[in-house]
Formats: sequence, structure tokens, C-alpha cells
Amino acid sequence: MSYFSYLECSKCGNKYSSKEVHNLCECGAPLLVRYDLEAIKKNVDKNVFKGREKGLFRFKELLPVEDEKNIVTLGEGDTPVFKLEKLGDKIGLKNLYIKDEGLNPTGTFKARGAAVGVSKAKELGIKTIAMPTAGNAGGAWSAYSAKAGIELVVAMPYDAPDLAKKEAYIYGSKTYLVKGLISDAGKIIAKGVKKHGWFDAATLKEPYRIEGKKTMGLEIAEYFNWEFPDAILYPTGGGVGIIGIWKAFKELEELGWIKNKIPKLIAVQSEGCNPIVKAFNEDKEASEFCEDANTIAGGIRVPKALGDFLVLDAVRESKGTAVEVKDSEIIESLNLLAKAEGLFIAPEGATLVAAVNKLVKDGFLKEEEKVVLLNTGSGLKYANLVDEKLPILEIDSDI
Amino acid sequence: MSYFSYLECSKCGNKYSSKEVHNLCECGAPLLVRYDLEAIKKNVDKNVFKGREKGLFRFKELLPVEDEKNIVTLGEGDTPVFKLEKLGDKIGLKNLYIKDEGLNPTGTFKARGAAVGVSKAKELGIKTIAMPTAGNAGGAWSAYSAKAGIELVVAMPYDAPDLAKKEAYIYGSKTYLVKGLISDAGKIIAKGVKKHGWFDAATLKEPYRIEGKKTMGLEIAEYFNWEFPDAILYPTGGGVGIIGIWKAFKELEELGWIKNKIPKLIAVQSEGCNPIVKAFNEDKEASEFCEDANTIAGGIRVPKALGDFLVLDAVRESKGTAVEVKDSEIIESLNLLAKAEGLFIAPEGATLVAAVNKLVKDGFLKEEEKVVLLNTGSGLKYANLVDEKLPILEIDSDI
Repeated sequence: MSYFSYLECSKCGNKYSSKEVHNLCECGAPLLVRYDLEAIKKNVDKNVFKGREKGLFRFKELLPVEDEKNIVTLGEGDTPVFKLEKLGDKIGLKNLYIKDEGLNPTGTFKARGAAVGVSKAKELGIKTIAMPTAGNAGGAWSAYSAKAGIELVVAMPYDAPDLAKKEAYIYGSKTYLVKGLISDAGKIIAKGVKKHGWFDAATLKEPYRIEGKKTMGLEIAEYFNWEFPDAILYPTGGGVGIIGIWKAFKELEELGWIKNKIPKLIAVQSEGCNPIVKAFNEDKEASEFCEDANTIAGGIRVPKALGDFLVLDAVRESKGTAVEVKDSEIIESLNLLAKAEGLFIAPEGATLVAAVNKLVKDGFLKEEEKVVLLNTGSGLKYANLVDEKLPILEIDSDI
Repeated sequence: MSYFSYLECSKCGNKYSSKEVHNLCECGAPLLVRYDLEAIKKNVDKNVFKGREKGLFRFKELLPVEDEKNIVTLGEGDTPVFKLEKLGDKIGLKNLYIKDEGLNPTGTFKARGAAVGVSKAKELGIKTIAMPTAGNAGGAWSAYSAKAGIELVVAMPYDAPDLAKKEAYIYGSKTYLVKGLISDAGKIIAKGVKKHGWFDAATLKEPYRIEGKKTMGLEIAEYFNWEFPDAILYPTGGGVGIIGIWKAFKELEELGWIKNKIPKLIAVQSEGCNPIVKAFNEDKEASEFCEDANTIAGGIRVPKALGDFLVLDAVRESKGTAVEVKDSEIIESLNLLAKAEGLFIAPEGATLVAAVNKLVKDGFLKEEEKVVLLNTGSGLKYANLVDEKLPILEIDSDI
């Protein structure tokens, strides 16, 4: 079923066996999964995926799980794409779309990475997984680990969202709150990994999460009948999603399944935490640590991503760009999209609405272009951002 | 596309035109949508649905929307079914399944009713819809009305869950909090309907919501390759879901698409609000108003349902039963399912875990029977029920 052939270092090109447990390359860079694309080209018809049972494991040939019995699924993937007619009219785009990842289990796109990551951990016989998290990844990995019967150790900042703490707790993960930032939580996990031999599943420290995220790209390509749209906007924190989508598109190109140009990949950040935007504007290969990182969109409050150089590569090679928006614009966009399109999305996703508006105004995006916004989660996980003021009526009132 | 022929009173059998706006029958009972099943039998192959784009509107021949351009969709329906291996082992069922409605837009099965209800309102040219709600229906109808560009007036108890208030608010509904119960909210809406001519979309006062809920039954039948399972457990408040599933199964039977026996439909309530269980046990045709109704599962805190007689009919005709569980069992079940199966479900859904356990113990359900639990929503909407107590670490700690 899978055409997984080996792991390859994203920096030095070193190769590792697909049958062993690996984290980073000896050189310290993330490993990427490589497939026998020649064999897929010969044996697989791209139209076969559509007829299979829904969910991201439809794309099993391009995923690293080798035996179907190891698949751990909670119904992730195959999220809907909607054309945003009203918003498109308002900002001047005739073909504006949103892919809504909020309909994944645990309410975010993190479910994709967790589904593939936990399934592969099961296949490799791993007993305990450990990870630091800002919140949503902890919820997702907790759910899949619970289903798989794998122990999960999670450390998150003590000021992480309540809902993230509650998710990790109810799924039964060994969860610790750390009086510090996610980087401090990461250090505690790294020590535990050394001491106890846990499998380290921190962002990009294990090679399989990207493969789960990659399926967003496969689904977008399939949605447009195996043609690439012109641009994809993506809220960028750790950047695994954008790296995954880029990887999907390169694989599809190599397979010869798509002939037109890979979309411009557009990384969107908040003004309060904009390391990728800065590095892009300053033509640097990697980002610098963003001091005092601060934004209401917690999922993109990542001061320095391990895979920053991969994100910057993807943005540049695809002729994309990087854009920052204000927190006040995020809140405005959240409200706008709910009222115009009936979609209550995550603040990370809402950055894209403000960004696409800017990019049309400054001419980077043209009226006829097919543009996709990738919303990463459900607004239900961010209820604290909605400040309702509703009128109260006595029981004998009239409206 | 639709084979909608007329509306029929569920009590007196009076018929009404499918082309006009109708609420209740003159006799005060709910109206049901009737289709030209003979024509469907002749023209439609049951295997055609599977090949269509996912979502409940796949079943368009058995839905009341007549012109595709009126469909208002946010990605509802086609929710996953999982086999509960660990839970099944624990309680002694070899074929225990759950259908997880938490993956619908707005996080609950209410999205199904809203999708069909709002689409049909659009088709009928309705400008303003009004409804009382305990919470989740208000959120769902707000989202779909926003997308449709139809005005929605919502009244809910001032002590409704915060998240429900925030949903109605962010989607831009005209939302009022009422210093009283849902019945008081209902009275204020009823007065507004008379005064302003709004379309009344209170539970069972409009005929189309049931049709949306019906698709849960169609999906279950299709999932089991057009064979009925042996039993379905359903958390019962207003009862629209169980009435809808029953209606789906009767239609499938009449179409000749399924040959085996309709499943036992099992209504599950909480001890603090058990009018259907009482009426069932006392062999009554309708329920009595449950004074001081009280349960942590807000969606089934319905003291007297307008369609109670239909629920009781469905349970009795299908040789099902009615079961009540304690609130403490609901919390235990929530925790059990999250840890064993990676599913954080709504408290309404959790009633079913406790109930199925009882029904196996007392012999009503047998080890080999195919049993489906219908979870109505995501636990993310009920975070207040999770009381996390997590250890806090200093930044230089070891685990």
C-alpha cells in the first residue's frame, strides 16, 4: 500500500532506513519521508483516491504507514472547501475559496499530523510519545494516542488555553503545566526523552507529522480536478502545514499528475510574532528568534521555527510572499467571515482574510486568480475572543 | 431532484401543499414531508448516493429542497462511524459502534436540521426566521442563516451556555437573552411571529428540520451496506432526531431498499428530566410536563416535547425501550470514552454509554447484536464539564 522508501535529511541529504525509529538527522535538521515516486507513477492512477472511503488515509500510497492495521483514525481529513462569494465580491476576487480544517476531530488541522504520526508510532512499536505543545497539538495527539493505546507525555505552558489543558486531561495523557514558555516545556520534554527513552514528537523532530499535513495539499489539488490554484494563504507558526503542502505539490509535479504551475504559497503571520515575514523581507535563509512574541492567535505565536528555512524555501521557490497583519484586523476578520459566510473560524485562519485583502489592494493577487485560504481550526476553540453583549429581556417582554 | 409531494399532519392526516409556507397543522400537530416513494423506487438506485459529493444533500431525492441553487451548506453530514472495540469488550458487545455527530459544522447534529431548514426557507422566499433555543440549535441556525443572508431572531434563556450566546452573536443573529426558561423564550418568539410575520422555526413547528435529521438514519443504513443494525441508542430531548431516523427507516422499508427488521430505537434520558421514559413505562401515548427538569446534559433538558407521541410511537413500534441514567454516570462515561477510544463527546451522547451498559446487563441487548450509539455533539462545546487538575512544574524541573 505505501511506497515509503527512506528518510532523507532536509539539509545534508543523509539517508535513513524507513524501518527504524528516527528523529532528527545527525546534523540536527528535520528528516523528510521519500517515496518511490517512479513506482507510483507506473502503478497508481490519480483518480483512484476519489472512490475510496473518505479521510486522509485515502492517499495511502503517499503516506508512510505500511500496514493498514496500524491506522489510527478518528475521522480526520476530507474537510470541505467553500467558495466565498460575498467576501470575494467585497475584496475583489472572483475565485476566492476557503478550506475549513475546523471540521477535523479535536477541531483543528493538528488532527492530520497526529493521525499519521500516531499511526506510524504504533507501526514502529513505540510505547511512549512525548511532546511540548502550545495547546492544539497536545489535544490532537492525546486523542489519537488514547485510541492507539500509546502513552503520551505532554508539557504545555501553564497559561495555555483552558480547553487545551482539558483535552489533554480528559484523554488521559500524562500532562504537565510548565511555569514558562513552550520553549521551557520543550526543554523539560527533551530531558525526559533522554532519561526515559520516550519518542520525541516535538514539531519536526519526528518525520511523519508533515506527511499528515501534506494531505491538505493533496486534497486541494484533487478538489480543483488536479489543477493547482494560483495562490494559497497559510497562517504560519511552526510552518509544518506550509512545508507539508509544498512537499505534496512537489510530489504531484514529479508524478506528472499536474501540469500547471505550483501555487504561490503565502505565509501569513501576526505583527506581534513575525519572524518569517522579517526573514523573507530581509532575504535571509533562516529566521531570527522573535523576542516578546505576542499575538491573540496562539497557534502562530512561534518565535523561531525549527523548519523556518524550509518555509522560506517554499515561499520563495513558489513565487509567494509573506505578510503580517494586526491583532485588531484578526478580530475584525473573524467577525466579518462569521456574518458574511456563516464560518466561525480560528484567529490563525482569520489572519488570512486580512492578508488577502492587502494583497489584492497592492496588486499581488489579481481579480481572476484562484485563491485558497487555509483555515486551520474551529472558532469554537477560541470562544474567549468573542465578547458578546446581548440584550436581556423580562419574561413578559415583546420583541 | 426532490420527490417532495406534500405535507401531511402527523396526527389527523390533513394534507398541505409543498409550495406554500406552513408551520403546524390546523389541529396543532407537526407536519411531515411526504415524497413520491413509488417514483423514487422506479427511478433511483440506492447505490447512486455513494458516488456523489459528500454531505447530506447527497440524498437530495429524499429531501425537500427542489432547486439545487437554494442549498445552503457548511459541510454538514457524512459524519464518521467507529467500531468501539475497547468499550465493546468491556461491556460485552461484539459489534458496538458510535456515529460521531460532533464533526458537523457548529459541533453538533443541529447543523443537519439547520442546513435543510434554512435551505428550504430560502427556497420559500422567507426573509426572517425566528426561534427559541436552549443553545446549540441557535448556533447552528445562526451560521446557516448568515450564509443564506436570511435574518434570524433568536431567544434563549439568559443562563444558556456562554458558547451558544457567543455563536449566535458572532454570526450576527438578532439574539435576546430571556430571564426565564426556554418555554418563556418560546412565548416571546411566538408573540413576535404574530406581530412581525416572522417564520416560526421552533422545534417541530416547521416541517423541514426533521428531514435534515433524517439523513442520520440514511447514512447509518448505507454504512451497513443497506442492512439495518439491531439497535440504535439516541439521547432524547425534543426527539426530532429519533423521529427523523424512524421516518428514514420507514421510507427505506417502503422503498424496498432494505429487507431486514427496523432497529430497536432506544430513547435515553437523564433521571433529572425523564418524561419520555416515564410515559413509556406507564404505557401512555404522550408525556407529562417534567417539573424542575434538571440535568448537566442541557440538550436533553426538555420537560415536554411537542413530538413526544411520535417518539413514543417510534420506540414502541420498533420494539425498543426507554432508559434513564444518572448525571454522575454521564460524567463517568465521558471520561471512559475519551480515554478508551479517543472521543471527547457531548454529555448527551455520553448518556448512551451508561445506558448500553445497563441494557447488556439486564439482557435487553445481546452480545452478537449490532448496536449503534448516536453521539449528538462535540465535547468541545461542553468544556465546563471537565475539571482538570494538572501538576505544575518549575522551568528547571525533571519529569
